[in-house]
Amino acid sequence: MAISPGETLRELRERKPLVHQITNYVVMNETANATLALGALPVMAHALGEVEEMASVAGALVLNIGTLSEPWVDAMLLAGKATSAPIVLDPVGAGATRFRTETAKRLLGELTVTVLRGNAAEVATLTGRQAEIRGVESIGAEGSAADLARDAARALGCVVSVTGPTDHISDGDRVIAVSNGHRLLATVTGTGCMSSAVTGSFLAAKPDRPLEAAAEALIAFGVAGEDAARDARGPGTFHAALYDGLYNLDPATLDARAKVEE
Amino acid sequence: MAISPGETLRELRERKPLVHQITNYVVMNETANATLALGALPVMAHALGEVEEMASVAGALVLNIGTLSEPWVDAMLLAGKATSAPIVLDPVGAGATRFRTETAKRLLGELTVTVLRGNAAEVATLTGRQAEIRGVESIGAEGSAADLARDAARALGCVVSVTGPTDHISDGDRVIAVSNGHRLLATVTGTGCMSSAVTGSFLAAKPDRPLEAAAEALIAFGVAGEDAARDARGPGTFHAALYDGLYNLDPATLDARAKVEE
Amino acid sequence: MAISPGETLRELRERKPLVHQITNYVVMNETANATLALGALPVMAHALGEVEEMASVAGALVLNIGTLSEPWVDAMLLAGKATSAPIVLDPVGAGATRFRTETAKRLLGELTVTVLRGNAAEVATLTGRQAEIRGVESIGAEGSAADLARDAARALGCVVSVTGPTDHISDGDRVIAVSNGHRLLATVTGTGCMSSAVTGSFLAAKPDRPLEAAAEALIAFGVAGEDAARDARGPGTFHAALYDGLYNLDPATLDARAKVEE
Repeated sequence: MAISPGETLRELRERKPLVHQITNYVVMNETANATLALGALPVMAHALGEVEEMASVAGALVLNIGTLSEPWVDAMLLAGKATSAPIVLDPVGAGATRFRTETAKRLLGELTVTVLRGNAAEVATLTGRQAEIRGVESIGAEGSAADLARDAARALGCVVSVTGPTDHISDGDRVIAVSNGHRLLATVTGTGCMSSAVTGSFLAAKPDRPLEAAAEALIAFGVAGEDAARDARGPGTFHAALYDGLYNLDPATLDARAKVEE
Repeated sequence: MAISPGETLRELRERKPLVHQITNYVVMNETANATLALGALPVMAHALGEVEEMASVAGALVLNIGTLSEPWVDAMLLAGKATSAPIVLDPVGAGATRFRTETAKRLLGELTVTVLRGNAAEVATLTGRQAEIRGVESIGAEGSAADLARDAARALGCVVSVTGPTDHISDGDRVIAVSNGHRLLATVTGTGCMSSAVTGSFLAAKPDRPLEAAAEALIAFGVAGEDAARDARGPGTFHAALYDGLYNLDPATLDARAKVEE
Repeated sequence: MAISPGETLRELRERKPLVHQITNYVVMNETANATLALGALPVMAHALGEVEEMASVAGALVLNIGTLSEPWVDAMLLAGKATSAPIVLDPVGAGATRFRTETAKRLLGELTVTVLRGNAAEVATLTGRQAEIRGVESIGAEGSAADLARDAARALGCVVSVTGPTDHISDGDRVIAVSNGHRLLATVTGTGCMSSAVTGSFLAAKPDRPLEAAAEALIAFGVAGEDAARDARGPGTFHAALYDGLYNLDPATLDARAKVEE
């Protein structure tokens, strides 16, 4: 099946899938708004008494370990075991503290993660490579990003999206490179988390093709970033325009704007 | 007493009432900023060790059950029992999980709620009607919104605001319909929650007339939405402009802009 | 050493210090984005299992007691004892409830706070003066702000920044007055918290001169506010433009724009 972000976006907007997110305090509003602007329906719920019920009716589940604490890990495990929908894991800050690294590994071990979406240092850490992370920012990782994505996908048994100036998405066999996006994305907190929420939304619309869906999500998010940058005067006006960009994504022209190589 | 959002807004800006909000993580910043832009003073506090003290000096208390967990329910009950000010309940996601439905019912049962502000599915769920909700989004509810508001107000013994393209506010006897607003409001997460915070702010300025205050709040919020939509290019620029709209609401012209029927 | 916000900003952008923030739910996204737009690296972490590890590698630690609860106080104490970096304390709502007042005093007592940054009522409360606070808004405090800053610095043994229309920063001996800023800053929730995050960022770049760094931070933040106000149509567009303002701060012209007196 070919990569067609436009077609999947059209499908997504028609189905309006529910995307259940257990995510960090910093970006909850942002990822909910990105999901809604794109055309899916976000829901945030983390209570042990309701995550299973919510996750079991969702079209995708997005787990994000920023601002982690113990009860949230329990909620992620409960939700992840209760759902048969695709699961996206965003290992925010893996490598920065043992607690985050171990939690990310535990979630990968106990749940059937469909797509791991992280920066190079986070993914490298989880693959046993050398990496440098400062807080939640990737400073460097051993090897090329394409190799990293492929090796991580093989080692972890899921699709892996390594995002950066160029994104690399792999299922352990194929590696897709996506060069859409804009440097202002790195100046706003939580754009990585948003790209995970967008990945979950695309997976909900195309659950049987996770490699393609993950790549299409990053194309769509990158194109929205390109549009947002047009009139931005800095991170604040860019951030507002990013939701406009997601909302105004045009399925008819999206495929032609993809900067994708395989 | 006639409905005069302009007069109540003038009163609100003069008194600057404290509006204590125990609300969800997704919209905390948003409802605080909406309250402040309108002219009231928001305060967010949920610790068991301080909610009573804070609620007892507030002009209104707004309880919102999105991203709920047990300790927050305890805090809502403590705060609600400690205050003599009007209480607004926003039953986010009632109907989506048993935990939310039961918590909303418990708060309605144990506290003297002044205004229940929700979407059609949430209110229908709490009134024992058939309803469909996907996450926190109302998909459908049995019967007309006007009937729903009236019946819910009678059954629950409080003012009920059912918001949607047209809002219906009832005390069980009168039903007021408000048609201000803009479709972009539905593209931003938390605008329902913001309308609950604005409702609390208006109640604090006009505590003895909750039906009128609740209707005036939705007129004011709707007019701010209309103004915000004027130059918006999508949900992000609309969201930023919404706070401008609340801040720039003109008490002198507000009554004339009300689209209200009874 | 002279006050040179431009020079310190240049240093900050070159070093990109990690600024660990344990802060309130309302402003987490906002302070992270302000830190990032300025040029430093924010990280939010509050779990007891990771705060020591994170704080020990940070260039500054910012503690903020809004939306406080017990586990967060424990995290602040652990982090504060684990770090040798400068600590900023933002006593949000001290004076509004006993819990906040006592927590602020406890943090001041058990940790080596480098800079206390608050509004007049919060600082007055912690210095034993009469003050009036409504929620988290300062209504009034006994005595002049300059005296308050000096006396508080002497009593508490740290640098004290009392922010308001004019900010006063003192080490108990010198008092620096900064008049940069714009009245729209008071219409957006969390701008005080952002100024604390900016203070932490400047301290990380100039740890050996906390008085100067604290004053320079408020100059820089105020100038960003002045720039943001230029095209703002209200609090929402101002808020977005504030991040643009921080991002676009020009080290070469910043010193000349400082409105500073000593």
